[in-house]
Amino acid sequence: MGSISTKPPSGMRDFLAAEVARRRHVIGVIERVYESFGFVPLETPAIENLSTLLGKYGPEGDQLLYRLLHRRERLARALAAGAPEEADLSDEGLRYDLTVPLARVVANHPELPPFFKRYQIQPVWRADRPAKGRFREFWQCDVDAIGTRSPVADAEVIGAVATVLKHLGFGGEAAPFQIHVNHRELLRAMVAVARIGPELEASTLIALDKLEKIGREGVIKELVEKGIEATDAHQVLTHLDHARAPRFLERVAESPAHAACAAAAGLLELLALARSGPAAAHLVFDPTLARGLSYYTGPIFEITLPGLAGSIGGGGRYDGLIGMFSKHQIPAVGFSLGLERILLVMEERGMFPPRCVGPELLLCRFPDVPAAEAIRIATQLRAERALADGTRAPGLRVELFADTPAVGKQIAYAVGIGAPFVGLVGGDELASGRLTVKKLATGEQKALPVAEVPAFVRG
Amino acid sequence: MGSISTKPPSGMRDFLAAEVARRRHVIGVIERVYESFGFVPLETPAIENLSTLLGKYGPEGDQLLYRLLHRRERLARALAAGAPEEADLSDEGLRYDLTVPLARVVANHPELPPFFKRYQIQPVWRADRPAKGRFREFWQCDVDAIGTRSPVADAEVIGAVATVLKHLGFGGEAAPFQIHVNHRELLRAMVAVARIGPELEASTLIALDKLEKIGREGVIKELVEKGIEATDAHQVLTHLDHARAPRFLERVAESPAHAACAAAAGLLELLALARSGPAAAHLVFDPTLARGLSYYTGPIFEITLPGLAGSIGGGGRYDGLIGMFSKHQIPAVGFSLGLERILLVMEERGMFPPRCVGPELLLCRFPDVPAAEAIRIATQLRAERALADGTRAPGLRVELFADTPAVGKQIAYAVGIGAPFVGLVGGDELASGRLTVKKLATGEQKALPVAEVPAFVRG
Repeated sequence: MGSISTKPPSGMRDFLAAEVARRRHVIGVIERVYESFGFVPLETPAIENLSTLLGKYGPEGDQLLYRLLHRRERLARALAAGAPEEADLSDEGLRYDLTVPLARVVANHPELPPFFKRYQIQPVWRADRPAKGRFREFWQCDVDAIGTRSPVADAEVIGAVATVLKHLGFGGEAAPFQIHVNHRELLRAMVAVARIGPELEASTLIALDKLEKIGREGVIKELVEKGIEATDAHQVLTHLDHARAPRFLERVAESPAHAACAAAAGLLELLALARSGPAAAHLVFDPTLARGLSYYTGPIFEITLPGLAGSIGGGGRYDGLIGMFSKHQIPAVGFSLGLERILLVMEERGMFPPRCVGPELLLCRFPDVPAAEAIRIATQLRAERALADGTRAPGLRVELFADTPAVGKQIAYAVGIGAPFVGLVGGDELASGRLTVKKLATGEQKALPVAEVPAFVRG
Repeated sequence: MGSISTKPPSGMRDFLAAEVARRRHVIGVIERVYESFGFVPLETPAIENLSTLLGKYGPEGDQLLYRLLHRRERLARALAAGAPEEADLSDEGLRYDLTVPLARVVANHPELPPFFKRYQIQPVWRADRPAKGRFREFWQCDVDAIGTRSPVADAEVIGAVATVLKHLGFGGEAAPFQIHVNHRELLRAMVAVARIGPELEASTLIALDKLEKIGREGVIKELVEKGIEATDAHQVLTHLDHARAPRFLERVAESPAHAACAAAAGLLELLALARSGPAAAHLVFDPTLARGLSYYTGPIFEITLPGLAGSIGGGGRYDGLIGMFSKHQIPAVGFSLGLERILLVMEERGMFPPRCVGPELLLCRFPDVPAAEAIRIATQLRAERALADGTRAPGLRVELFADTPAVGKQIAYAVGIGAPFVGLVGGDELASGRLTVKKLATGEQKALPVAEVPAFVRG
């Protein structure tokens, strides 16, 4: 045949070995660091009920949901009834983020500890228009602390993501990063003072969030298009200018009459706490930071890198979301790192450690050597070994060449797949119980007892 | 609200920390072993084009596919056209197994090495009726060797899964296992000799596969229902009885006139090779093994455990599948382990190592200790340490209690989450730069400089 497309669907990707290794390296660091902060792993299914997903992300988010078509009798009934609508054809969809599933799980497990610190690293799906660096299947790396309003929890999630980035090599000259911090109440107070009604608050915040990208005039144009008076739009921006002045937060915190007095004091406390931890050198108060998602209620965060448009992660406090699934309001704060953006930066700036994927040794045999003998030698090389210090080393990664073309061809294949060593078995080797091992980079070659090969290859 | 269901959809599961740890333990062993055999990782997207998936698994498989509903304009057009059918509403679906995506990837990457040994451990989705141990989202752990007809490749995938099982603790008295081996050509020859036409071959094999489960009479009943003469049905079973006789394979291999002569010789060669490797003690020739999937062309495999209905893995040679996506026929052989079945057995038979999840130490502070000081101490405890031998130990897993209820309450929380140690910071500790560390299991308590705490906790 050969007429079927062999590409993955639009916005989807296949990951070959080298890419899988890079992704696992980053995920491994994130897991270790999140666990060192006392967070425990959670995994949720790819498929959620639409009743769980709908109405949490705003109308644009709802549109980007992947919905699963009903099957068999259920589909037949929907089609037979005539003039079916979208809602008649589906009641399940794919996970859109990791926060809404977390809220569902917390509501579903009253036996969880009162403070639940979880991390979750899984793919999510959004039927967005694919573009450079924007995919329809991508991974989020979330860390959330549930069950406390203490700013210590906010400082801890900030500390955890800062530590992740530093362990990955960010923070130095190649990839300095900043963690922008703001508070939703500060933004709401500015919007209210500019006489913009609560019904326009969300779209005002979305416009303000674009200040860096589209400039003052751009923001004002967008605000006016949304129905805000030009003078009010100008006023919001003037308030933002004031907020950039030195000691703005301190002054608001000292003004009991200011609508955002408590928020400013809380943000100062949070900044002081976060500066006691690993994020110390990276924190900036940014009054223009707004964040798109509607469920944030308090401090909000976003990580930027000079030279990179957009962010590599964001988060904030959302004290109302879990209550949408539960009788109880349970406060929560979290941070989400975008795996794809992190990989992109690390790739562009050469931040990956040397590769460690694929076989370390290709075992080649001459045609006169029975395959069973080669399998016996390979089995020995692959076995775990006890080391002098009592620990155990994993077995050598050994590929056995299945066929027996000329040995030169077998070696050329080893070079092609990047295996650093070949082991040759001929009649002499079989008779002496040795293996001729050749280091391909140097041509160095040695006949060794099989038991000594792993130490030679691993150096 | 609280009116939304908080359960995952039918057939789907949430995994809390202890379960994630068990799943990761098994996946980690599988990855290490597959890599020691020279296989490299591949990951493919959850979503595939329906043109890729349909027609590969048989009609029942096609029915179990999850299909994604069209969105926006595309859906509107389909609905507006009137009387839409299933095919008008969707052209993408969820991955049903890992073999078809592999075949697509191989066809899509002509630059891959001529011999491509890959493993893949990812979830798949099937809209099957959920039952005990059967889920709609479940993980497969596949290992496949592409590009050679050599039985060395078959022996290697068999050796790899046998090694995985042994590393997980299978193979001893608690969980002995058998790898059943048969050859599709042997089955086809029997079916042909019993005068059953090729059009009934597939359903005959499916019925024979149930011999253990439904017995001789059950198989004959099913064959007759499918339109096979009772005498022919009996004859197939008589042939199967003959095939169980000693030296059956040898006798067929020595009979050039037998339709399955070459297959029997090939199977004997494969068994000899596999017996030179780690599967040696576990191989049995099983003439009743048939396997459900239609794409197998040569040797087929299945792993069973005494006391467990069904199998924990299966595989075989499929030399025709990749050609469905490519101009070239590329031979291939593979094995798939079912993660869920393996976990079930390990859980029931107590085969998991002691848990290692969650914080090792809960840091508690008295109300008079500023949170910033506690964050400083936690940061120090979480840092990686250099060890005497030059390697680095990961930081301690430390949870910082965010609030300051009575210390007794904080300790009760530590017991609840299973943290083995608490660290107490009061005014005295702050003044002396020490931490009071308490081992909860024994009550043993010690005041230590912060730098000495990790070594004390890790023993």
